[in-house]
Amino acid sequence: MPHKNQHIVLIGAGNLATQLGLALYEQGYSIVQVYSRTIAAAQTLASQIKATATDNLAQLMPTANLYIYAIKDDALPEVINKVTIDYGIHVHTSGSVPMAVFEKKRTNFGVFYPLQTFKKEKRVDFQQIPIFLEASNKQTFDNLNDITKTISENVHNSTSEDRQTLHLSAVFACNFTNHFYAIAGEVLKSTNLPFAVLLPLIREGVNKLETLTPKEAQTGPAVRNDQNIINNHLKLLKAYPEWQEIYQQITKNIQNYHNTKNE
Amino acid sequence: MPHKNQHIVLIGAGNLATQLGLALYEQGYSIVQVYSRTIAAAQTLASQIKATATDNLAQLMPTANLYIYAIKDDALPEVINKVTIDYGIHVHTSGSVPMAVFEKKRTNFGVFYPLQTFKKEKRVDFQQIPIFLEASNKQTFDNLNDITKTISENVHNSTSEDRQTLHLSAVFACNFTNHFYAIAGEVLKSTNLPFAVLLPLIREGVNKLETLTPKEAQTGPAVRNDQNIINNHLKLLKAYPEWQEIYQQITKNIQNYHNTKNE
Repeated sequence: MPHKNQHIVLIGAGNLATQLGLALYEQGYSIVQVYSRTIAAAQTLASQIKATATDNLAQLMPTANLYIYAIKDDALPEVINKVTIDYGIHVHTSGSVPMAVFEKKRTNFGVFYPLQTFKKEKRVDFQQIPIFLEASNKQTFDNLNDITKTISENVHNSTSEDRQTLHLSAVFACNFTNHFYAIAGEVLKSTNLPFAVLLPLIREGVNKLETLTPKEAQTGPAVRNDQNIINNHLKLLKAYPEWQEIYQQITKNIQNYHNTKNE
Repeated sequence: MPHKNQHIVLIGAGNLATQLGLALYEQGYSIVQVYSRTIAAAQTLASQIKATATDNLAQLMPTANLYIYAIKDDALPEVINKVTIDYGIHVHTSGSVPMAVFEKKRTNFGVFYPLQTFKKEKRVDFQQIPIFLEASNKQTFDNLNDITKTISENVHNSTSEDRQTLHLSAVFACNFTNHFYAIAGEVLKSTNLPFAVLLPLIREGVNKLETLTPKEAQTGPAVRNDQNIINNHLKLLKAYPEWQEIYQQITKNIQNYHNTKNE
């Protein structure tokens, strides 16, 4: 297994670092070390992937092939500055931070951005996850690409600009939609129905996108311009003024987007 | 097959009528007639389920066991008034219209509300769809329940009030989320990436709900209070003022809901 010659250091022990560490470990890579600000978090992940743990950036192993910075975007510049090693390839995993954050601080660097939502406690199948790569030079890109292709079948080359736009679209498609699931669940609490009754509807909403564009797939009172139902729903939301406002704003935007208003 | 003794008239030939008609037909029911305002629409569905077609409510078959009104909510009162038959059971399929719309106009009536999104051109598996029933008397409920259980394993008894709340929650969980998929796709157009790169992310967003509540499943810059990314996204949206406003409003609401603001 050639992967075993690849020594990887994980900087971070959060949701993404955990899932990525597990995926790399299962492919036979040696994750030699896990860093986290809190040693307990580093140890929790390290123990699962036979790595050592540290909470001290000055003690990072100096000759790994790949250093993966899987930390909050806000923390990236400071952590990159504190790491003095310039051996191997250094990549961050952010959708929004330009690759240039490594400029003049490392020789070989890049970005490894998996377009997915991660939770420590929920395993994901990395093979299906689109991963967007960028690198400071061709050799670095090729090395990064070789490693990435062993864990995902869905690897893309992407500029920092496109990656930012991708991340923005992902916020709408995933984070905001998840918040709407939360609102739906809160609204349901006034009945005795569990959130689970919504799951077949939610799943089919996604299945439709296999064959229809989101525009073609749109249903509901807004796109049908069914004002009686809209008024009724706004009345039902009177105890939740913020959600009432959101309902109005999204309804109006759906109607503008589909040109159904005052049809 | 006892279903064959059940004669059903479908009033409507739209998305729901089409999928419901196909599901009932495949279970062996006799759909004797399809009504639509436009005869071509009635014929298109009727030809798929060996029914006759009509665009004249005065010509509805007078002795069917079940009359299903699968039409726009706004049209229900008028169509109910125009149908003079009071034989069999009369049900509508709306989440938002109270059962009382049939009051004093029919003897045996109720509601058959499938919590799902339908498109004519996209077959759905009715067995998994939660269906919410309500009826004017026990005998009618039992008859409706018997029929419904042959096409879905997920049948519930529900009041008109609960059904309205359910429909409201479905608008958030399905219609509004679908609009966010559309926005995500529009935003992506400035890159050369296809909408399909978002599908694994969208699917995992739903898979998480098998084991986590939506509140637990929330990720992204809003709940992390990552103001740099939020500002960057708002800048990227400057060509789309309405979506910029939506981004701000939903971000603020996520932060209020999770109490992460000014953390």
